[in-house]
Amino acid sequence: MIRAGILGASGYGGSELIRRLGRHPDVAVSGLASRQFLGQKADRGWPQLAGLPVGDLAFTDDEAVIDGADVVFLATPHGATAPLVARVHQAGKVAIDLSADYRLDAGTYTEWYGLEHPHPELLAAARYGLVELHRAELPGARIVAGPGCNATAATLALAPLAAAGHLGEDASVTIATGISGAGRSPALPLQSPEAMDSVVPYRTGGTHRHIGEVEANLGRVISAASEGGLAAARALTTHGPQKRPTITFTPMRVPMVRGILATAVTRSPRGDPGTGELLALYREFYAGSSLLHVQDTAPETKAVTGTDRAILSVQADARTGMIIAFCVLDNLGLGAAGQAVQAFNVALGLNELHGLELEGRWP
Amino acid sequence: MIRAGILGASGYGGSELIRRLGRHPDVAVSGLASRQFLGQKADRGWPQLAGLPVGDLAFTDDEAVIDGADVVFLATPHGATAPLVARVHQAGKVAIDLSADYRLDAGTYTEWYGLEHPHPELLAAARYGLVELHRAELPGARIVAGPGCNATAATLALAPLAAAGHLGEDASVTIATGISGAGRSPALPLQSPEAMDSVVPYRTGGTHRHIGEVEANLGRVISAASEGGLAAARALTTHGPQKRPTITFTPMRVPMVRGILATAVTRSPRGDPGTGELLALYREFYAGSSLLHVQDTAPETKAVTGTDRAILSVQADARTGMIIAFCVLDNLGLGAAGQAVQAFNVALGLNELHGLELEGRWP
Amino acid sequence: MIRAGILGASGYGGSELIRRLGRHPDVAVSGLASRQFLGQKADRGWPQLAGLPVGDLAFTDDEAVIDGADVVFLATPHGATAPLVARVHQAGKVAIDLSADYRLDAGTYTEWYGLEHPHPELLAAARYGLVELHRAELPGARIVAGPGCNATAATLALAPLAAAGHLGEDASVTIATGISGAGRSPALPLQSPEAMDSVVPYRTGGTHRHIGEVEANLGRVISAASEGGLAAARALTTHGPQKRPTITFTPMRVPMVRGILATAVTRSPRGDPGTGELLALYREFYAGSSLLHVQDTAPETKAVTGTDRAILSVQADARTGMIIAFCVLDNLGLGAAGQAVQAFNVALGLNELHGLELEGRWP
Amino acid sequence: MIRAGILGASGYGGSELIRRLGRHPDVAVSGLASRQFLGQKADRGWPQLAGLPVGDLAFTDDEAVIDGADVVFLATPHGATAPLVARVHQAGKVAIDLSADYRLDAGTYTEWYGLEHPHPELLAAARYGLVELHRAELPGARIVAGPGCNATAATLALAPLAAAGHLGEDASVTIATGISGAGRSPALPLQSPEAMDSVVPYRTGGTHRHIGEVEANLGRVISAASEGGLAAARALTTHGPQKRPTITFTPMRVPMVRGILATAVTRSPRGDPGTGELLALYREFYAGSSLLHVQDTAPETKAVTGTDRAILSVQADARTGMIIAFCVLDNLGLGAAGQAVQAFNVALGLNELHGLELEGRWP
Repeated sequence: MIRAGILGASGYGGSELIRRLGRHPDVAVSGLASRQFLGQKADRGWPQLAGLPVGDLAFTDDEAVIDGADVVFLATPHGATAPLVARVHQAGKVAIDLSADYRLDAGTYTEWYGLEHPHPELLAAARYGLVELHRAELPGARIVAGPGCNATAATLALAPLAAAGHLGEDASVTIATGISGAGRSPALPLQSPEAMDSVVPYRTGGTHRHIGEVEANLGRVISAASEGGLAAARALTTHGPQKRPTITFTPMRVPMVRGILATAVTRSPRGDPGTGELLALYREFYAGSSLLHVQDTAPETKAVTGTDRAILSVQADARTGMIIAFCVLDNLGLGAAGQAVQAFNVALGLNELHGLELEGRWP
Repeated sequence: MIRAGILGASGYGGSELIRRLGRHPDVAVSGLASRQFLGQKADRGWPQLAGLPVGDLAFTDDEAVIDGADVVFLATPHGATAPLVARVHQAGKVAIDLSADYRLDAGTYTEWYGLEHPHPELLAAARYGLVELHRAELPGARIVAGPGCNATAATLALAPLAAAGHLGEDASVTIATGISGAGRSPALPLQSPEAMDSVVPYRTGGTHRHIGEVEANLGRVISAASEGGLAAARALTTHGPQKRPTITFTPMRVPMVRGILATAVTRSPRGDPGTGELLALYREFYAGSSLLHVQDTAPETKAVTGTDRAILSVQADARTGMIIAFCVLDNLGLGAAGQAVQAFNVALGLNELHGLELEGRWP
Repeated sequence: MIRAGILGASGYGGSELIRRLGRHPDVAVSGLASRQFLGQKADRGWPQLAGLPVGDLAFTDDEAVIDGADVVFLATPHGATAPLVARVHQAGKVAIDLSADYRLDAGTYTEWYGLEHPHPELLAAARYGLVELHRAELPGARIVAGPGCNATAATLALAPLAAAGHLGEDASVTIATGISGAGRSPALPLQSPEAMDSVVPYRTGGTHRHIGEVEANLGRVISAASEGGLAAARALTTHGPQKRPTITFTPMRVPMVRGILATAVTRSPRGDPGTGELLALYREFYAGSSLLHVQDTAPETKAVTGTDRAILSVQADARTGMIIAFCVLDNLGLGAAGQAVQAFNVALGLNELHGLELEGRWP
Repeated sequence: MIRAGILGASGYGGSELIRRLGRHPDVAVSGLASRQFLGQKADRGWPQLAGLPVGDLAFTDDEAVIDGADVVFLATPHGATAPLVARVHQAGKVAIDLSADYRLDAGTYTEWYGLEHPHPELLAAARYGLVELHRAELPGARIVAGPGCNATAATLALAPLAAAGHLGEDASVTIATGISGAGRSPALPLQSPEAMDSVVPYRTGGTHRHIGEVEANLGRVISAASEGGLAAARALTTHGPQKRPTITFTPMRVPMVRGILATAVTRSPRGDPGTGELLALYREFYAGSSLLHVQDTAPETKAVTGTDRAILSVQADARTGMIIAFCVLDNLGLGAAGQAVQAFNVALGLNELHGLELEGRWP
């Protein structure tokens, strides 16, 4: 059994890691770290664990968890996570990082996060954990950088278009996201009476930090496709793109706990593909992905809530010629913990689906 | 006192008309019609009226309400409403129609609603009730066609851009709307366990019926502005536009009772205006509107829930050069009953704000 | 015009006071105090005020607001409010206190709030602002103690039974309350992802601080009724009761913004009254109350959301002989700001309903 | 592999059966019946199944499903289910019935459901599927009657008190239930704009049909305990009780999708046990139950949402001497499909927990 430790285990990413790793047949959860609940039992932080064996685990500190683990999952805030990853790496252990700290090259990281990267020397060792595009280069990875939730949804919605040359210059993505995407630290805009019954745009106008990540992702897809076609675009190397597309990105919080709907709108520079051609493209591009499903109709978030799947669809507006692509996923599932476990599975050569949740519940 | 009757008084538009007309100082509610609750007291249909005088009114039929009223508000379904408006008109009374039946010219109506218009001869008499743009031509109107809720939000968000030549060819509007926008007839997708905790795209890909209305509205703005500038664009005549812009329109239902956030994204064909220039444009365009407010930051729907106001904002994305415009309103307030009462006030020469709700409650 | 100032104007009670006093024909809002938003405009704290005249008022400090007002409404936390009330009183102004600080005698206050009352000498001057029971003694009051929201709901549900001798020894009240009842300070249990989709009991087992208030209220009703019957029980003096009933009180938070449903269950010590007799009792007891409505069927909270009304019903369970009484009200309406304005109106001899909201909106 | 068919597979009970049986290691889902979706693929009725193998199953009719199964789960409406169970039974197959039709003796069934039981001859063969109390008599059962969701919560909350002689005459249960408990057929009170933001009492005053079931359950516990103590009360026979307690039962719908909180209040006829003694009683009574957890603090529903567990707590109110007991469960989990699968497992001698969900997700 692989001993897996979790840092930031009292946040939402931590909760979902506990759930997935706890049912993973190849893994034993060896430790949970939390500053807020240090010394307390896990079920104090997580009421759903009361009465279950895992609920009796005590939250300890980062050091103890790193020491006792073969693989460390980091669900800690950006900025604070980079040095923790370095410690894990220096201890000779695998780091699966759910934060933003190893997703970008050093310059882009500084541009979007306003921080000097404290360990630029480790960036080359990090593999970007968007498994559906980077499956080929993840085996053997010692540092995995889990993608951002909104970035995953936007990238999955647009990657087939990027690969096929259908991504126009003025592509726009609207993100409707559940409130858990903002994390577990109490804040006025997230309090129930403020957030319920309201749709709230946030970080609009080109300021959301996932934009750099989406543009880098799509740039890699475009570069790879220009050399090797669709197949290459689905099996990326991390060599950065020479030219990045720009994306106008408008996120809004909607009054639900989880889930993301990314709606991407663009005009193809290659003429007007019809809906049928586009659906065929998406199905070809994502063929073989157990966690991605392409359907004829625009998906709703409830279909993937609690799961590690994404459902996509794409349409051509016959009147305007515009392409509209949709992706739904659970921000804490495929958007965070699920994708991290998937990448971990691939990195360590395990069954890619172990620990993951495919079938959602309804209602 | 003007005697006002309401048809379709057991639907959500009806509920909000009762509320506004009931507190209108120049109006007495003279009758409520409902097929579903025929013969029952109003508080059987509307629990919030229990114990109030208006709750003792009995729901009667259309005929009785028309007979007893000077002005008839129609909150009845499209298709069924056109002949009712004709009866009201032939009876020499003013018709304020909240349905879609008199919003469009006959050809556009058939195109979007799939129906021959049964009374094309009355279309010339109808005035479109988007008061902020049509205030000049509403006085004396005998038939007022209340705009659609989504159409109102999209039009208000884009009209200043259209007037100033900033509306690009590939404009895209995303609509996040509360569930009450789908009406009060029970249907599976609207049942709570299906609709709560989910974001659901609907009528995407150029199929939503409000598209034709938005394009007609913006076409009129463009035509008027090309002849008379901003001032003319704010005081429209109903002479149809020669050329209509096309809008890609993507609506989604979000799990809240009321409210619409329209997010419009476009690239100006006239270079890249900055955020400051755009905000100044919106403020100039909507100067003097008591119900519209332009603010620096993207608005949230809760700020206007229950009210007859809209709040707008606009940004230029400095990275991409794209313009993002926002409009929030209450689909049952300014998007339906509030706007209908406002147009009625203007049509009859009353104080434009009588009966309206300006200050929302929070939370 | 009476100049009204509001302390704690950036909390939910403050928001609702602004709304009610702003539309009150005899009142001018003269000042808003907030520590959190000190120096900022009101619309920074209250997005719904953006673009409205009141939104331009600046939040100042307590001193300035007290100085500029004839009447001061205090929507500040218990403990901190008692000395503020004293300052208002010493300045010769009327204090309308929404906190718990002047609701109870000094001993009961200490028992439930764990604090020595800092101004016991003022308690005799305070009038308890549950207008429906204390209307007779409020005129001329210089300090009004607004009742607690849960206490109001429980008292209204049980007072007719207490007055008629039907309140049994083992009376139990369950409170289902919206989340705004917990206030506006960020806290983890109130964060949307924690509180949505969940029903959460809190302060159960005889620990909720409103219990002492409910028991005192009902004790007064019983004492008065034993001397003067129903009429006396509806026109209370503040002379404390000699014997207080005990109430088992179980509150739970439910995932909605506002509203309280109090469900009271008891067995009458006077035999088994039928539903008809009980309804007649409630109607007689609350006859003449413009804000209370007794109906045959159990009420739902949405019927009073946003209003200053309460709807009540009562049933006898024919199988078990138990009495079940219901009361719904808005915790921020009749449960807080509405009741405070109503008591203010009575205290100053104004129209009791000025500024209040009677007709709710639906949905 | 046991072939399991599901009737009523397009209702919420059906959805949760598909989920649990689909992951059950000893079971193959052999057929799904639905009138509404007859002939369509499962993912038309259940969007969460799109792209999964089970989503490709077609809904067929009852006959075909019964023919192809070894065990038939019936998630069909009461009244309509009794004859279907008879057909399953006559075909020599095991029937696991989630409806109310085989829960009660014929007389009690008629009393509460207003129907003559069409197959009273089969009632003796039916075993009541509340596994925690009836585990001993379920092995070998050919007809299992799954308990009602509210009845399960109320029974679990009160059974230890009943067994220990602490259930008083005036016991009262309040049920706060999510909206999915009302089923999937569209109805106005369940429509989102009506049900969101509201707490709605329903079937109050002794009219809810689960009352007879709760009283029968507790009567059996009392009878068994009077003869054999706690141990007997936990291993019931179906011999009916001679005397049934009466319960005052007040259900309310709260605006969440799933979950039940049962709050039971009673005074012990055996003096005032303290909280410690009561908690010890509950822990002893439910010792060995993998799905039940007793904790010191009142539980919230989110802790069990999506699971097949119940969490209980109990308190003595030191002031009033009353006992307050709590039970939370998921109405579709332990309250319906989970309990049915658990009873099926016990009836067929399988691992009791196969197919069940123990660890919930948070948030």
